[in-house]
Amino acid sequence: MENGKIKAVGPAATILLELPEGVQVASYPDSMIMPGFVDIHIHFPQITTVACYGEQLLEWLQNYILPAEAEYADKALAQERAAVFLKELLRRGTTTASVYGSIAKESAEALFEVAQRLNLRLLAGKVMMDRNGPEGMKLATPESDYQDSKELIEKWHGKGRLSYVVTPRFAPACSAADLQAASRLLKEYPGVYLQTHICENLHEIAWVRELFPERKSYLDVYDYYGLVGEKTLLGHSLHLDDEDFIRVKETGAVLCPCPPSNFFLGSGLFKFAKAKEYNVRVALGTDLGAGNTFSMVRAMEEAYKMAQLQGYSLSPFEAFYLVTLGGARALSMEDKIGNLEVGKEADFIIMDLKSTPFLEFRMQFTKTLRDKLFVQMMLSDDRAIRETYVYGALVHDREDR
Amino acid sequence: MENGKIKAVGPAATILLELPEGVQVASYPDSMIMPGFVDIHIHFPQITTVACYGEQLLEWLQNYILPAEAEYADKALAQERAAVFLKELLRRGTTTASVYGSIAKESAEALFEVAQRLNLRLLAGKVMMDRNGPEGMKLATPESDYQDSKELIEKWHGKGRLSYVVTPRFAPACSAADLQAASRLLKEYPGVYLQTHICENLHEIAWVRELFPERKSYLDVYDYYGLVGEKTLLGHSLHLDDEDFIRVKETGAVLCPCPPSNFFLGSGLFKFAKAKEYNVRVALGTDLGAGNTFSMVRAMEEAYKMAQLQGYSLSPFEAFYLVTLGGARALSMEDKIGNLEVGKEADFIIMDLKSTPFLEFRMQFTKTLRDKLFVQMMLSDDRAIRETYVYGALVHDREDR
Repeated sequence: MENGKIKAVGPAATILLELPEGVQVASYPDSMIMPGFVDIHIHFPQITTVACYGEQLLEWLQNYILPAEAEYADKALAQERAAVFLKELLRRGTTTASVYGSIAKESAEALFEVAQRLNLRLLAGKVMMDRNGPEGMKLATPESDYQDSKELIEKWHGKGRLSYVVTPRFAPACSAADLQAASRLLKEYPGVYLQTHICENLHEIAWVRELFPERKSYLDVYDYYGLVGEKTLLGHSLHLDDEDFIRVKETGAVLCPCPPSNFFLGSGLFKFAKAKEYNVRVALGTDLGAGNTFSMVRAMEEAYKMAQLQGYSLSPFEAFYLVTLGGARALSMEDKIGNLEVGKEADFIIMDLKSTPFLEFRMQFTKTLRDKLFVQMMLSDDRAIRETYVYGALVHDREDR
Repeated sequence: MENGKIKAVGPAATILLELPEGVQVASYPDSMIMPGFVDIHIHFPQITTVACYGEQLLEWLQNYILPAEAEYADKALAQERAAVFLKELLRRGTTTASVYGSIAKESAEALFEVAQRLNLRLLAGKVMMDRNGPEGMKLATPESDYQDSKELIEKWHGKGRLSYVVTPRFAPACSAADLQAASRLLKEYPGVYLQTHICENLHEIAWVRELFPERKSYLDVYDYYGLVGEKTLLGHSLHLDDEDFIRVKETGAVLCPCPPSNFFLGSGLFKFAKAKEYNVRVALGTDLGAGNTFSMVRAMEEAYKMAQLQGYSLSPFEAFYLVTLGGARALSMEDKIGNLEVGKEADFIIMDLKSTPFLEFRMQFTKTLRDKLFVQMMLSDDRAIRETYVYGALVHDREDR
C-alpha cells in the first residue's frame, strides 16, 4: 500500500522479492485478506432501538423508531453516537455504507465528521419526511428538507471520500412536494445519490396505493417524481412485480434487500431468482435497527436462508460478491473500491478462518475455497474480523477493546 | 446448591442471612441466572458437516450427511468427537439435549460415556436405518437395529442422568420391519423415548406417501407402528395439517421445530399459532448440522423471525420458556430440570448481559425484563454464556479456552 491505495498484489513469494527496502511486512496465518464489506442500507439513529419487540413495519416505526430518532437534533449526542456506530461497522469489517440519518441535519453532519476523521468512504443523508409521523413528532417541511439537504450536500458531498445521499424516508412519509424537493436536489447536484424504501411490507404497499391513487405502482411514485436512476438505492424491494423489474432494469436503479431486517419484521422474501433473470444490480444491507446485526457476514447468512426458502442456492461466491464488488458496483464505485486491484483504495479486512474453537475444528474438514467461504459465511461472527484497514490505515484491531 | 440440587432460592439479601457457615458465595453483576437450555433435536455426527452448501433436505442427506456419518463406527474417533460436541453445547449454555447418533452403536456409546463423566442429563440414541442410503453406505437390518438399541438401552438407560431415545431416522430410511423393531423396543422398555423426523420437506412428504401408500398421512405411518405417544419427539413437524394436530394432541407427542435448520435447508415454517391453538407441547431444537449453530439463543432468534414471517409475535418469555421449562416438559422431566426451584437439579447458566461492546451500549436503553431478554435473544452469542453449571458443578467458564 502507498498513500491509501493498493500498490501491488500477488503471491507473497513474488511480492516480497520486489519490495523496496524499508517496507513493513505483515503476515497473517490461517487468514484471508478480502475487500472491506459494503452495507448498502443501514440506519444510524436506530442503534438504540435495535431489537425492539413484536411489531411489523408500520407499527414498529410509529411505536419505537420515529420517537427515538428525535434526539439526534442534539449535535453532541449525535457525534458521540456516530462514533459508536462507525466503530461497530469497522469491527465487523464494513468499510463503506450508505447510511440513513434522522430527520435532523445534525445526524448526517455528525456521521460525516466522524467518517472524515476515519477517512471512510461513506455515503449518508438526513432523512426527508414531512408527514405521517407519530403524535408529537416534529416533522420537516419540503422547504426545510430541501434547504437542510442542500447545505449538507454543499458542505460534504465529494469532500474526501464522502458522498451525499438524498434520503426521502419513503412515500408514505413524504408529500408530493417533499418528493419534488428531493427531485430538485438530484437535478441541481447530479453527482449525489438517492436512497429510499420500497415494497417492504404489504400494508405499506396498500397505504402507498391509497396515498397516490393516480400512480400505477409504488415504484411509479418515485419514478414519476424523477427519483429513479442509476444512483438510486431502492431499500428492500421485496414485493416488486415483473413490470417493476423491467422498469428497474431500464433505469439502472439498484435493489437493496436486507435479509436480517426482512426476517426480523416478517416483511417477506427478496426474489433473488427474478433479480438475476432481469439482470439488475443488487447489493445487500443489514438495515440495522430493523436488522438485528451490524454484520454483513450475518446478512449473507440470512440471504442464503432467504434464498433457500425459495429453492434458490446463493453460492458463497455470489454472496461475498454482493457485499464487496457487487456493493461497489451498486454505488458506481467499482473503480475505487470492491476488490484488491492495483490502484484501488486500500479498504480491506483480515479474516481469521479459525476465530472460534468450533471454527478451528470445522475448518479441518473443508477442502475447496467455496467450502471455506461458506463455512465462514454460516458460522463466523465479528471475532473473525481480525483487522480492518481503511485507506491503508489500521482502524480496527480485534485485540483492542 | 448441595449434592447437585438446588437447596434454596431467593433474593441475595434473604439467602445470605440464612447461609450456614462455610458456604461459598459467588456474585455476578450485570448478569442473569437462568436454567440451562434444552436442545430437543441435534445430530452428534454432523459436527464435521455443519454448513454444507447448496442443497435441500434429501440431496443434502445423500450427498453430504450420510457418507460422513460412516466414520463413527470407530470408537476412539467417536469418543474424541463426542467430547468436542458436548463442550460446544456447554459453551452455549445447553445442559440437556436429545441427540441423534449415527447408525453405529459406538456413536451413542461415546456420547453416553462422555456425558456420564460430565454428569449431564442427556438423551441419545443410535440411528435406526435399513434402507435408502447412498451407494456404498453400510445399512443396518431390523435385527441389528433392534439388537444394538437394546444393548444400549440396557447399558445406559436410567444410568445416572442418562436416557435412551429409540431413533428411527425417518420413515423413508426405515422399512416396516425396522419401524416394528422400534415399536418392540418401546414396548419392552416403557421408560425410553422415541425421536424421529416428520413433515420437514415437501419432497420428503411426497416420498413417504409413495413408500407407504396404505397410510393416510406421514404421522399415520409412525402412529400405525405404535411410535407416537407422550415420549415421542417429532422433529420439525412443519407441514402438519389439522388432522395431524388433533392426533398429536390426543397422543401427547411433542413437536420439535428447529428454525436454524428449517431456514438453512429451506424446509419451511413451523406453525406456531396452530400449535398454540391445539395446545400441544412444543420445544425448540437447533438440528445441527442442518442447523448452522449449537446455540439455543440463535434458535430463539430464528424462531422469532420464523414466527414474524407468519404474523405471529413470539415473545421473549415464550421463547425462553420453550428452551427451558418447555423443553423439560417436552421430555417429561419438569420435576427434575427446567427452572430454578428448590429440589431440582442444579443445571443453570450465568448469562452476562453486557458480553460485547455493543450489548453494553444497547442494554442502557432497555427498561423492562421483556426488553432485556429480547435484546439478549436477538443480539447475544456464546460470549454471553459466562458460566455453565451441571448438577451443581462448573463445567464451562468463558474465560477458559
